Amino acid sequence: MSTTISNTSTHTGLSMAPVVPTTGALTPLGLDEVRITDGFWADRQRVNGSATLPHVEHWLEREGWLRNFDLAAAGTLPEGRRGREFADSEVYKYLEAVAWELGRLGGDDALESRFRSVVDRVAAAQEADGYLNTRFGRPGQGERWSDLEWGHELYCLGHLFQAAVARERTSPGADDGLLGIATRAADLICEVFGADGIQSVCGHAEVEVGLAELARVTGESRYLDLASLFVERRGNGVLADIEYGRAYFQDDLPIREAEALRGHAVRANYLAAGATDIAVEHGDTGLLEALRGQWDRTIARRTYLTGGQGSHHQDEAFGEDFELPSDRAYSETCAGIASIMFSWRLLLEDRDVRYADHIERVLYNVVATSPSAAGTAFFYANTLHQRTPGESSPADEVSPRASSSERAPWFDVSCCPPNVARTLASLAAFVATSDDHGVQIHQFASATIDTIIGGAHGGRFRAELETDYPRSGVVSLRILEAPREAVTVSIRVPSWADDASLSVAPADGEDARDAQEVAPGYADLARVFAAGDVVELSFGMRPRVTHPDPRVDAIRGAVAIERGPEVYCVESVDLPGGDESLAEIEIDPDAGVEEAGDGRLTVALRARPVVDAAWPYAERFDAPRDAEPFTATIAPYHSWAERGPSTMRVWIPTTRS
Amino acid sequence: MSTTISNTSTHTGLSMAPVVPTTGALTPLGLDEVRITDGFWADRQRVNGSATLPHVEHWLEREGWLRNFDLAAAGTLPEGRRGREFADSEVYKYLEAVAWELGRLGGDDALESRFRSVVDRVAAAQEADGYLNTRFGRPGQGERWSDLEWGHELYCLGHLFQAAVARERTSPGADDGLLGIATRAADLICEVFGADGIQSVCGHAEVEVGLAELARVTGESRYLDLASLFVERRGNGVLADIEYGRAYFQDDLPIREAEALRGHAVRANYLAAGATDIAVEHGDTGLLEALRGQWDRTIARRTYLTGGQGSHHQDEAFGEDFELPSDRAYSETCAGIASIMFSWRLLLEDRDVRYADHIERVLYNVVATSPSAAGTAFFYANTLHQRTPGESSPADEVSPRASSSERAPWFDVSCCPPNVARTLASLAAFVATSDDHGVQIHQFASATIDTIIGGAHGGRFRAELETDYPRSGVVSLRILEAPREAVTVSIRVPSWADDASLSVAPADGEDARDAQEVAPGYADLARVFAAGDVVELSFGMRPRVTHPDPRVDAIRGAVAIERGPEVYCVESVDLPGGDESLAEIEIDPDAGVEEAGDGRLTVALRARPVVDAAWPYAERFDAPRDAEPFTATIAPYHSWAERGPSTMRVWIPTTRS
Repeated sequence: MSTTISNTSTHTGLSMAPVVPTTGALTPLGLDEVRITDGFWADRQRVNGSATLPHVEHWLEREGWLRNFDLAAAGTLPEGRRGREFADSEVYKYLEAVAWELGRLGGDDALESRFRSVVDRVAAAQEADGYLNTRFGRPGQGERWSDLEWGHELYCLGHLFQAAVARERTSPGADDGLLGIATRAADLICEVFGADGIQSVCGHAEVEVGLAELARVTGESRYLDLASLFVERRGNGVLADIEYGRAYFQDDLPIREAEALRGHAVRANYLAAGATDIAVEHGDTGLLEALRGQWDRTIARRTYLTGGQGSHHQDEAFGEDFELPSDRAYSETCAGIASIMFSWRLLLEDRDVRYADHIERVLYNVVATSPSAAGTAFFYANTLHQRTPGESSPADEVSPRASSSERAPWFDVSCCPPNVARTLASLAAFVATSDDHGVQIHQFASATIDTIIGGAHGGRFRAELETDYPRSGVVSLRILEAPREAVTVSIRVPSWADDASLSVAPADGEDARDAQEVAPGYADLARVFAAGDVVELSFGMRPRVTHPDPRVDAIRGAVAIERGPEVYCVESVDLPGGDESLAEIEIDPDAGVEEAGDGRLTVALRARPVVDAAWPYAERFDAPRDAEPFTATIAPYHSWAERGPSTMRVWIPTTRS
Repeated sequence: MSTTISNTSTHTGLSMAPVVPTTGALTPLGLDEVRITDGFWADRQRVNGSATLPHVEHWLEREGWLRNFDLAAAGTLPEGRRGREFADSEVYKYLEAVAWELGRLGGDDALESRFRSVVDRVAAAQEADGYLNTRFGRPGQGERWSDLEWGHELYCLGHLFQAAVARERTSPGADDGLLGIATRAADLICEVFGADGIQSVCGHAEVEVGLAELARVTGESRYLDLASLFVERRGNGVLADIEYGRAYFQDDLPIREAEALRGHAVRANYLAAGATDIAVEHGDTGLLEALRGQWDRTIARRTYLTGGQGSHHQDEAFGEDFELPSDRAYSETCAGIASIMFSWRLLLEDRDVRYADHIERVLYNVVATSPSAAGTAFFYANTLHQRTPGESSPADEVSPRASSSERAPWFDVSCCPPNVARTLASLAAFVATSDDHGVQIHQFASATIDTIIGGAHGGRFRAELETDYPRSGVVSLRILEAPREAVTVSIRVPSWADDASLSVAPADGEDARDAQEVAPGYADLARVFAAGDVVELSFGMRPRVTHPDPRVDAIRGAVAIERGPEVYCVESVDLPGGDESLAEIEIDPDAGVEEAGDGRLTVALRARPVVDAAWPYAERFDAPRDAEPFTATIAPYHSWAERGPSTMRVWIPTTRS
């Protein structure tokens, strides 16, 4: 009864990458094909491997979330179980992160041994029929599948599947048993939730994307079919109504009818990512069109300048169109990662540069913002305006809160740290893709590329990508080996790069091509490349003064500074007046913004002293302006809150308002 | 061991008013001394009595919250118990509302009988030792006082005490037994939580204010002492830390050290009200000074233009200073009422007009906004900006949500309807006060006043207050009877009334006083009054264009229209372009605002057509402006959402931004 799905592209479902569709415009390259070697992201990958992964494992152990599996195996649950209902999933995300890290490193004995040890503990907790969850199903616990709204059982399995997929792709045929654990659990839910089973879904989407990828790895189409059932059932009120409304878990509208992402921002993006997988595999153009429309509207109306998503603290949810308050920005780290998951899938399908532009925005301004430079503390929410310095989170305590003015080592709900870890460990897979005509560069990092270009005239393609981006806008690709036939190298020209040019310096000095202007989008260069040829994309990194759509009420009369992919912020540690003076500053948007080295900029600000009134609304509220502007240094948003508690704002009021 | 507190003012603790301190600058007048006879508030009192009170009782019965007491009496709990942990309190607030209504009406047999029937059901549920709560203490329930953070046991008792106080003041010595129920419960908690008892407090302040008032009614000082213990204990981390932080229940800072109200806005104001009672009774000037400071800072930095408080949906809490988003305004109806409770106590103590000004603002723009014109549907939260029309709340269904774009008949957490009911039923008590020198008018309504002015030269004072305020700014007080000695009539001149004048037309035509300019504050007129003398306060009701403090980021570049005590709003049903066009409008703040009759105004707006972009942030975002302004009608905010789903905004972007 099991049928298989077939992979028609050059790469198989076992390519060493997080998402491997069987069809689509672009073919992902695996961690064995692209390696980030230096620069902004290489630094973060190193910290992730050396500090964040051990940190996450330490806290999973310390908080008892790993031990929950031991207790399950020992048959002593529910006594002693610790953590929230979704604690199992953090262990699976950790496993996924380690699997990618092992792929990135090309193996590591100590890490491999830690990985296997955790898998063993998970394996011991699985029941005979494949059920795996430490929170349900035992005497004294809720029955299996009895709380689909909040129980997160299928959600946890989705992360288990993603971990198993990552493992199988980075260590095909490994004898640790993780893939078997995943398929036994998947087989069980195919029975329980199949066409004749429970006609409902999980309150937190995630199993869809896990099942779709598990289908790609195993070839089992019924996993994809179940994912499709889950996607189509949702939106028809199959879950109970709740205080936040069914939109919270996207059960308000069938996915084909929705016009924008809504409700819980992580749930919404995970669901959209899974639905994209299904639409791609099924060639479901109607579903794809609906998803593209939702992406468009969400980006146009429900996304922060940082690429972050989620305007509500209450339900960690999208607000309405243009409801994007800076000071209450939730912009959960996991929502940013989930948005990358959704966007990446559409990019592979459509080769539309806007998806790659958005991924870059989220990477620099959400993913890079969450972890501390040391990799051992994290932002869960990513506010765009911090009015008071707030308090430091103790380095050795769990934070009960998702948001604070400083990064915390761990949270009661600690989804973000392992989510950052798996994203950074697999980041090289988002740098480049291939198709039958050549190679596409989506993200800029010093990296090596070594892949086989498919198609009749394909062949091996090796190259070195070199850049100090985002410090400069020069990206060069040195060809080391290329097919004998012409191939096309495509390099993304960011949307804001209005002065980009592409040049070629051939190794043999012949047929050189002078720099030619290229417009935002993909700059394509078709050529028979020879080893030593260098393609160079170059664009200015002039700081930009950015204004909001007037409908984004919360930031009317304010501007933000951007430079390249980085959003900047004013942090009070850089203001002569300190924390309190942040409320007084104004910027003349027509005055210059200057480079100050090291990625920092200077802007001319002016203080408009506050007038303390007994009531903050009046027929006139004219505060005097200080005559003289002063120069202040601003730094990339992702680097904020590294110098102790401070106040901060991304959007700066203009002297015009 | 029981000592008594003594009442040194003219009135005793049995004055027919909600707050009767034993000392203070002003003496409250009871519902038997001031009756609202006509106009804005008389209409609402009528609807409250004829529609809202039966509505509330119907829903208390329908939802099983009343029946919980029957089940407790039958000994069958916890089976069948319905409602949240604080459901008992809604029954007590209903009793309090009915007690005031009976006082307001001077008795009503049918209502009296309904009141007694509910009291009987409550009485039957009380345990032998005085304990009374349907949610705790029985086999299968949590133990008594085992969940002080969230259990609301003491909170419920606080409302029981307030109900018993209202009853004793409106029907002294009534044989229904409610006062006995209250004192038995109060005696129990004096033992359990006294100096040698549990060293903690309730997660939701309220018992403090209930105990203080119960002390005033009974003369039992130990109730006041216990209230004082609760106030002083809180703020020292006696409750567990929670996701929202201990500020949520004001357990972060001792009350004497706090600089502003913070955390859950209802909790914060109830606590401050109770603390004021204690400070007044104890002559605790240090505590009073701290409370005044908190009131000042909260009004100056944490209050909406409507007088509403609470910027967070998540924890129903105050935001930080100047964090006042219009579109996410929570401004819970109960927080407005709680702010009146706090402000009224400070007004009685200090005779500072600012407290009365704020009470008026909250009454017109929060309390009057919550109930529908029919009195059978309510806003729980009071947003200042509705971006989408939203959905109607079915008239016969409980709303699971605290906020929606339309009023709902009842909520899962239904604190607001009975809170509105008790406030409207007792509203006459907030109109006027007396002291040994005369009478003070704080709120404007057509009303009769009949009281005894205390002091050596006092005596009976009867008068008719007449006004069609807020339609006009003319308030006249016709004296019907006055002491033979000179008394002072003081009438509040609202803070925005910059052209007010006071005149006297003596009955005998002699000693007339021409209109004299009077400044905002209390306009005092000392005189030997004769029957027929008419004192008239007159001020213009010119519409005002109000600007925000630049630190209220969310409304930068926008203005609001006010007229008298009423805040206005643009509602899409009044826009030619309908719901969507609300996002396009701008106002020229220098153009005129005209009267349109019936409390409506016209303003000149201009449409700035939106430019839909794929990304809402750009180096230029210049939308063309339509050349011609158009005239639109605007109406008081409290009347919005009475004409079907619509979009709405209080703050209107200016053409300058």
